[in-house]
Amino acid sequence: MSSKTPVVTVAVDAMGGDFGPEVTVPAAIAFLTKPHNSSHRIVLVGLVDMIEPIVQAKGGAALMNAGRLSIHAASEVVAMDESPALALKRKKDSSMRVAINLVKEGSAQAAVSAGNTGALMATARFVLKTIKGIDRPAIISTLPCLDPSKTVHMLDLGANVDSTPEMLVQFAVMGSVLTHYVDKKESPRVALLNVGAEEIKGSEKVKRASQLLSASSLNYVGYVEADEILFSKVDVIVCDGFEGNVALKASEGTAKMILSVLKEEFKSSLYSKLAGAVALPVFKSVQSRLDPRSHNGASLIGLNGIVVKSHGGTDVVGFEFAIQEARQQASRDVIGHISTEIGKVFTS
Amino acid sequence: MSSKTPVVTVAVDAMGGDFGPEVTVPAAIAFLTKPHNSSHRIVLVGLVDMIEPIVQAKGGAALMNAGRLSIHAASEVVAMDESPALALKRKKDSSMRVAINLVKEGSAQAAVSAGNTGALMATARFVLKTIKGIDRPAIISTLPCLDPSKTVHMLDLGANVDSTPEMLVQFAVMGSVLTHYVDKKESPRVALLNVGAEEIKGSEKVKRASQLLSASSLNYVGYVEADEILFSKVDVIVCDGFEGNVALKASEGTAKMILSVLKEEFKSSLYSKLAGAVALPVFKSVQSRLDPRSHNGASLIGLNGIVVKSHGGTDVVGFEFAIQEARQQASRDVIGHISTEIGKVFTS
Repeated sequence: MSSKTPVVTVAVDAMGGDFGPEVTVPAAIAFLTKPHNSSHRIVLVGLVDMIEPIVQAKGGAALMNAGRLSIHAASEVVAMDESPALALKRKKDSSMRVAINLVKEGSAQAAVSAGNTGALMATARFVLKTIKGIDRPAIISTLPCLDPSKTVHMLDLGANVDSTPEMLVQFAVMGSVLTHYVDKKESPRVALLNVGAEEIKGSEKVKRASQLLSASSLNYVGYVEADEILFSKVDVIVCDGFEGNVALKASEGTAKMILSVLKEEFKSSLYSKLAGAVALPVFKSVQSRLDPRSHNGASLIGLNGIVVKSHGGTDVVGFEFAIQEARQQASRDVIGHISTEIGKVFTS
Repeated sequence: MSSKTPVVTVAVDAMGGDFGPEVTVPAAIAFLTKPHNSSHRIVLVGLVDMIEPIVQAKGGAALMNAGRLSIHAASEVVAMDESPALALKRKKDSSMRVAINLVKEGSAQAAVSAGNTGALMATARFVLKTIKGIDRPAIISTLPCLDPSKTVHMLDLGANVDSTPEMLVQFAVMGSVLTHYVDKKESPRVALLNVGAEEIKGSEKVKRASQLLSASSLNYVGYVEADEILFSKVDVIVCDGFEGNVALKASEGTAKMILSVLKEEFKSSLYSKLAGAVALPVFKSVQSRLDPRSHNGASLIGLNGIVVKSHGGTDVVGFEFAIQEARQQASRDVIGHISTEIGKVFTS
């Protein structure tokens, strides 16, 4: 595979996320030591004094000597709760910004950060600008499905509120391209998130977007409701960022509540504690099927550069998945394909 | 209590829901035989030939003789998948419509139906009209919280898409009144559903509604995100019907998926089956804490008449909760209080 795949350099914001280099550096090393990544490279961006000792401690010296791992200095760090506007204006030498600059200059083909989402989006938009034909970038993520062999891509998950029907069509093109080239699905089924059952089915925006998508070259299959998201009926779900964010967070909140209730009940008596111990191996399988780490890495899509956002609280395994996602998008020229497809969505 | 509580007559659409009179009639009888409901009455509306034998079989004859249970004939039934517009136009003698007519005429103080939501909303709006000062009715429901002693009311859950900031304020007034008078909460904390963490926080609509609510007499506490809905931080969550419906259905879909994964994993081997058997009593407690039946009964709020919508697939226990909800709203004059409060929300 490596002979056919062009070398990809990923710029990693080593300082981002709740744990910074403690997570990002070991994840970078783990990524580079996988046999199928043997031709790829990583630039760790951030405070050299913090990154360097961890590279040494985690056995990254050989990768550094081989030129596959390097450290690029950046003197500032964007805090997780910092205002995106202020981070953009004042922290021009932040690890996040410098990592994105490397993509802009062509020194790297993708950037990965577990930092402040708002600041990452603001910085990436400012530095990279959107692809011609795309009004706004979106946040896209893979969600797990009940059928473990399937996944669904959903966008926008919160970058844009008040999006127009035309922007929803652009999101559909981007989701379709990503699913086709990264997940290798032939003709991805694209659906719009809508409400049903009640008197008025859908907002004016969604109805208009549906008309536009029906007239497009995409494999548009109609509406899905939010209770169908995790049940593998379609490949790409398109929505406004407000609605997507609400769906994603409602889902996270519900999962958290159910797990809390399970934990409380399995601790409520001696019998239930014993039953919990007996059932532990089964709960481990359940947990592994629902493991959000294997779906880590939301992408900022629609920019002239690949930027993957890892969950801030992820661990080494999760961050490595985010790097892997970035590498795949770069290898498969997702940006070039979006650029081509957006031009012909209403002509073919 | 019954000496202080005025007599309430509830009109029950006996034909609505997936099971019709098989569920609605026993639920009505169970409601009327509860000691604290000893002064209240129910009118069962629908096909007499279907309802009467079930009343007899379920021991309702004494209630009929005492004048507390009666049957009101209606010759038509609205199907669960029927177009709301057609149901409204053509089925003028449907059990749903006749039940609402009884409220309009004053023969009943509330109506309950497990039928087609869209048709119920369209019919109720047409027959009852909105309270002065309310532009549109909303769907409000109680959601369970992690803390079993708490609940949260959320609206709108799907009656209105494309709602305005002013409508969101009206929803806030209605949610606050319902929570104050039915749940007896002194000064209900009202929040707007919003998105956070990302670059642009909230749509123009939500930002404007937040300004209006800050200037109102309500106990407005700001924004909540969708992952906080079930964690009891506020008493009333206000949102557009599209977003509310997405949140509710995403939550239902996630719960369904987690339960499916649990079931599959607890059947995957002999060991896991045995572990499941050992853990069964604990799962029963979990199930009872998450039981949606005890939160059955979404209300159509903002109309000149109380209308409660039960889940279509609910059982006798769930439908009885919906009747109870209707009775409480009537006893506590929710409509009169909304009417008063809407007039002074910006003056006190």
